[in-house]
Amino acid sequence: MLMPDGVAAISRLDDLETPRLLLDADRLERNCARMRERCRALGVALRPHLKTAKSLDVARVAIGGEPLGITVSTLKEAEHFARNGHRDILCAAGVVPAKFAHAARIQRETGCDLVLVTDARDIAEAAAAFAMDNTISLSFLIEIDCGEHRSGQLPDAPAVLDIARVIDASPHLRLRGVMAHAGHSYGADEPSAVVAIAAAERDAAVGAAARIRAAGLPCEIVSIGSTPTVLFADHLEGVTEVRAGIYMVWDLAQLSRKVCREDEIAVSVLSSVIGHTRHARTLILDAGALALSKDIGANRLLPGSGYGYLCDARTLARLGRLAVNGVHQEHGTVSVDGKRGDLAHCLED
Amino acid sequence: MLMPDGVAAISRLDDLETPRLLLDADRLERNCARMRERCRALGVALRPHLKTAKSLDVARVAIGGEPLGITVSTLKEAEHFARNGHRDILCAAGVVPAKFAHAARIQRETGCDLVLVTDARDIAEAAAAFAMDNTISLSFLIEIDCGEHRSGQLPDAPAVLDIARVIDASPHLRLRGVMAHAGHSYGADEPSAVVAIAAAERDAAVGAAARIRAAGLPCEIVSIGSTPTVLFADHLEGVTEVRAGIYMVWDLAQLSRKVCREDEIAVSVLSSVIGHTRHARTLILDAGALALSKDIGANRLLPGSGYGYLCDARTLARLGRLAVNGVHQEHGTVSVDGKRGDLAHCLED
Repeated sequence: MLMPDGVAAISRLDDLETPRLLLDADRLERNCARMRERCRALGVALRPHLKTAKSLDVARVAIGGEPLGITVSTLKEAEHFARNGHRDILCAAGVVPAKFAHAARIQRETGCDLVLVTDARDIAEAAAAFAMDNTISLSFLIEIDCGEHRSGQLPDAPAVLDIARVIDASPHLRLRGVMAHAGHSYGADEPSAVVAIAAAERDAAVGAAARIRAAGLPCEIVSIGSTPTVLFADHLEGVTEVRAGIYMVWDLAQLSRKVCREDEIAVSVLSSVIGHTRHARTLILDAGALALSKDIGANRLLPGSGYGYLCDARTLARLGRLAVNGVHQEHGTVSVDGKRGDLAHCLED
Repeated sequence: MLMPDGVAAISRLDDLETPRLLLDADRLERNCARMRERCRALGVALRPHLKTAKSLDVARVAIGGEPLGITVSTLKEAEHFARNGHRDILCAAGVVPAKFAHAARIQRETGCDLVLVTDARDIAEAAAAFAMDNTISLSFLIEIDCGEHRSGQLPDAPAVLDIARVIDASPHLRLRGVMAHAGHSYGADEPSAVVAIAAAERDAAVGAAARIRAAGLPCEIVSIGSTPTVLFADHLEGVTEVRAGIYMVWDLAQLSRKVCREDEIAVSVLSSVIGHTRHARTLILDAGALALSKDIGANRLLPGSGYGYLCDARTLARLGRLAVNGVHQEHGTVSVDGKRGDLAHCLED
């Protein structure tokens, strides 16, 4: 189904130039179907987050033929998806005035319903002035801090209503609702902790929405999200939509918290062994910091996972306990600890 | 001089959409001129490494009108520079047989003199077979391990001569010489240690070249490199060329080892403050893990440098002791420690 760039079949794996990202289309389909099913059961709309995949093909699978809006993190991503047919896009990172013109251009040129986010009254005031000067319309969610303390107003802060009133008072702005993001769910490794964080995320968003409505202001969207909280929430009453993205492909960090299984991870990096440095007992791969990233977040709960596990290119089965232990820009280093099982897999190919 | 993408003058800084990489053209020019001067003084050719900049504009500045070859890390980079006029390109990471066809295509379609690298006899044998089957020519350096123990053969290993003989025996392969890379110089923080590593890098490359020549085989290129070793070497007798790249723009990791000065760093990331989360005493930036990377290598010697220092966008002067302390994909978090000087700079704009 996903056959970009001339990749016709897995039988050609040996011919692919490396390093190269491999996406397992079957796993992707299953992961996406499962999340849509979960959201149906919860009675909320799914607004898939495309900041990870950044791909039209993946967006199509995530949406699965349903009339779903999408989430992105930047206006560049928003523009890409808007120019390719997406009509309902939430750009879920706080906007600043220097980006208003770009947002307006995306809406004007694509007809997309683009929803922006802020947690600041001065941004709302600047948006009202910009929209009036340029006779355009901008839509906003107000960001609520549900405990991560990254951004957002606390749900009971007076500023929530201040910002809501500034937006609602402008004939050029539309107050669409609120959003919360429990990013701290990624730091929890106990299901019970995630359940509690999911409840706090829901209560913060629903509570702020209730305050806005009680003040006579509109609040049609109540948006929460993070893959773990959506999966672990006991209910999502009052929430209208969830934003989640990593569930599409999963990763070792989610595996480390048992939010996914190893055989659900849909993305891997095909790499070549470009050196067997026997005197240093290392294998050298052509996948380094740029191919694998320097993200080692999984190691807290999965010590030794390094920059990624080594897997068989065809079966994706783990190669002993081998992992990429070090990265340079284009080189990955694998320490071979001398155990016969590991050596047999890797120093003989 | 460098005016890509409509950036006409620094007076438009406020209009630039963020996050955005800023390259200080004057600093780049000075850094490049200084390295060319250093290499002239050492009596070696400079082969600038373009894996960091990946830019034709930067390559032009690095070369400075001299007839210099360049270094790259991947065949993608090699192809980009070859298709844009570069004629002497060393691809300084071990090649594998699945990449021979790409290397051959680059040479055939651009006329570029592309030099590949290996440290393995079986790669040399595969190259000989491929080149014979396809009636093309491939050029090689043999990689020598000078103490980093990442890749390469030890300079006195029998394999060095084995590989040299396999290459020299093929009418389709050209043995061009040897290369060593003292990547472990980046781990040294004492000038005296770097001087010693530079000597080891030089001696390994020159020693291996002497063995190859003593066996009656050609070895025209003796290539070493890493910015610190080139700058700290007491002499480079017997070396023909040096590969270095980070000197063009510098970074906090090099600053932490005092290899450069703060006012020589030519690259920064222009970012917007998208949130003032006063209840958590944090500033939120729109430069996160993708804009800044997750590289925190500078923190070993510069504790508190985080993912980068906060600087004034116009003067590049540091803003107190503020740094990006945490990153999410598109968000950077700055902890404000309550000191008045720091707050004054950043919570009032």
